[in-house]
Amino acid sequence: MPELRKDPIVGRWVIISTDRAKRPTDFVREPVKIKGGGFCPFDYGNENKTPPEILAYRPNTNGATPAKDAPGWTVRVVPNKFPALGIEGDLNKQAEGMFDKMNGIGAHEVIIETPDHSASLAGLPETQVVTVLEAWRQRMVDLQKDVRFEYVSVFKNHGEAAGASLEHPHSQLIATPMVPMMVEQELEGALRHFRMKKRCIWCDIIRQEMQGKARGLGRLILGEGGFVALCPYAPRFPFETWILPEGHRSSYEDALGTDRRALARVLGEVLRRMNQVLGAPAWNLSLHSAPLKTPTLDHFHWHLEIIPKLTQVAGFEWGTGFFINPTPPEEAARYLRAGVPTAT
Amino acid sequence: MPELRKDPIVGRWVIISTDRAKRPTDFVREPVKIKGGGFCPFDYGNENKTPPEILAYRPNTNGATPAKDAPGWTVRVVPNKFPALGIEGDLNKQAEGMFDKMNGIGAHEVIIETPDHSASLAGLPETQVVTVLEAWRQRMVDLQKDVRFEYVSVFKNHGEAAGASLEHPHSQLIATPMVPMMVEQELEGALRHFRMKKRCIWCDIIRQEMQGKARGLGRLILGEGGFVALCPYAPRFPFETWILPEGHRSSYEDALGTDRRALARVLGEVLRRMNQVLGAPAWNLSLHSAPLKTPTLDHFHWHLEIIPKLTQVAGFEWGTGFFINPTPPEEAARYLRAGVPTAT
Repeated sequence: MPELRKDPIVGRWVIISTDRAKRPTDFVREPVKIKGGGFCPFDYGNENKTPPEILAYRPNTNGATPAKDAPGWTVRVVPNKFPALGIEGDLNKQAEGMFDKMNGIGAHEVIIETPDHSASLAGLPETQVVTVLEAWRQRMVDLQKDVRFEYVSVFKNHGEAAGASLEHPHSQLIATPMVPMMVEQELEGALRHFRMKKRCIWCDIIRQEMQGKARGLGRLILGEGGFVALCPYAPRFPFETWILPEGHRSSYEDALGTDRRALARVLGEVLRRMNQVLGAPAWNLSLHSAPLKTPTLDHFHWHLEIIPKLTQVAGFEWGTGFFINPTPPEEAARYLRAGVPTAT
Repeated sequence: MPELRKDPIVGRWVIISTDRAKRPTDFVREPVKIKGGGFCPFDYGNENKTPPEILAYRPNTNGATPAKDAPGWTVRVVPNKFPALGIEGDLNKQAEGMFDKMNGIGAHEVIIETPDHSASLAGLPETQVVTVLEAWRQRMVDLQKDVRFEYVSVFKNHGEAAGASLEHPHSQLIATPMVPMMVEQELEGALRHFRMKKRCIWCDIIRQEMQGKARGLGRLILGEGGFVALCPYAPRFPFETWILPEGHRSSYEDALGTDRRALARVLGEVLRRMNQVLGAPAWNLSLHSAPLKTPTLDHFHWHLEIIPKLTQVAGFEWGTGFFINPTPPEEAARYLRAGVPTAT
């Protein structure tokens, strides 16, 4: 008998297949491979092929002022050459009869995660991942100063099947003049919970999942250095994984430096286990943090969502918002805890 | 400068590219082709390879009682052999700590649209499409009697790229014990509009789009026999098209027989024009109708949503609910009005 489960935050019901639950080996897909060859604008020496850099980390300059847009960086942030939104201009909010629109103002940036074209976030040294996480934070803090923006969405597409158009490891961010609909839905659902219980819903989830672990009912994958990785109760996708700070924090930007070291360790570990269990799948990652203009929120808890690209979304999902998830999160977590495809 | 536009019903903002708007020929994709060969459980003579039929239209029996699960049908409805939900049992609603779940009870049926394996909905005779539309209605009316169900989602995946696993023309329906999240969001947004204005928001949209047409600002594709086809103001996907009854109707099941003839004509015409303009794309269709247990609603207006599969959804969309649409709906409607790829 399949199960209908409700996501406690946004209220989305999902269908969880239980009888013929799909194991990692049941998903047919191409492993993500670096092809290399050809010209890459993110490689050393091609810095003039991207728009001028916004931020770069150049640790080894021996005291000299580092040259901009030149090799020697470890992580480099540049404007997206084909931005979804334009950085220059006014919002010019207006009506078109009953409809509402504004100019497509926003920032669209690329975070080049390493000079090594054939590396991957899962395989980077921890210190390098820390620098990537620091670059996300620094850009969020900087974009917060622009009064036009209400939100910065940080995301990453890994592998062509997940929508990556360039294979050189990179993440992206898009700053927008409004809070994205999904974050709004999370904020609303979480506020409803907080008003009733005076507790953060994600804190409640973490607590329940930790108790579940003690009873051997785990959706928890790992917990380390103040971060937990878990498969949520009602995930849209098989092997969907969230990473959250164990203690309550509403904004990613507020995390301390030590937090980013622990986060880098947990994120790297989760990605490596996904590679082991699922055979180097393509995946999408997105960061959910509190909106830029809100103060610290008691009801919102920042988190990373990682979705391996294993299933196809079709008419039922697009038309209804229901999702059919062929792998119960308890099964997914069991595999990801072990880190290797478990014989069943 | 791109535009940010808000869907007036659910409040979703989308990014519409305007500078480098993608034309039909800019989308790279495989045209949908019928490969044939191999065994097909939906062909004549293979009726015993599907679960026993629930409903079938057999017009030419010369007065004899038609044999069930035998050839001679024009449209045939059978349970899905691999259902997402199980039809037998109680809902058994329960809590798992702070989480909510119930048994995965529901109906999952397949509407085989024609005995002709190599046909397509776009090419079927109008009378045949009428029978398909009538089958949808009849199944909805029947499933409404099951007290466990609150909603019937009718949808269709055309082409492998859109998630069709069998190429023989078929649509599907899934009855669920709750209203899908997207329909809930439409109901909420539409009720907000109705409370303020005492008007149905879709009626308002149709009115504004018809006035726009008079001023040459068209998102309207065609209007015929009481139905309109239009590209919505803030579509998630390029060439997304809605078909609605021009007059206010909340439930698809209530439509009169003449309505289905006009609907068949408009639906067929839209699909043929998509084939011409976009080169036989894969697409998803879904029917949004009022929930089964509500009376006639003044604020909800049933409609079909058709989404050609032209773009890839990635981390930004999954993480935020924002969509980047590379073709303004005015452009899409201009192509679909003409019915052939227009030189620009």
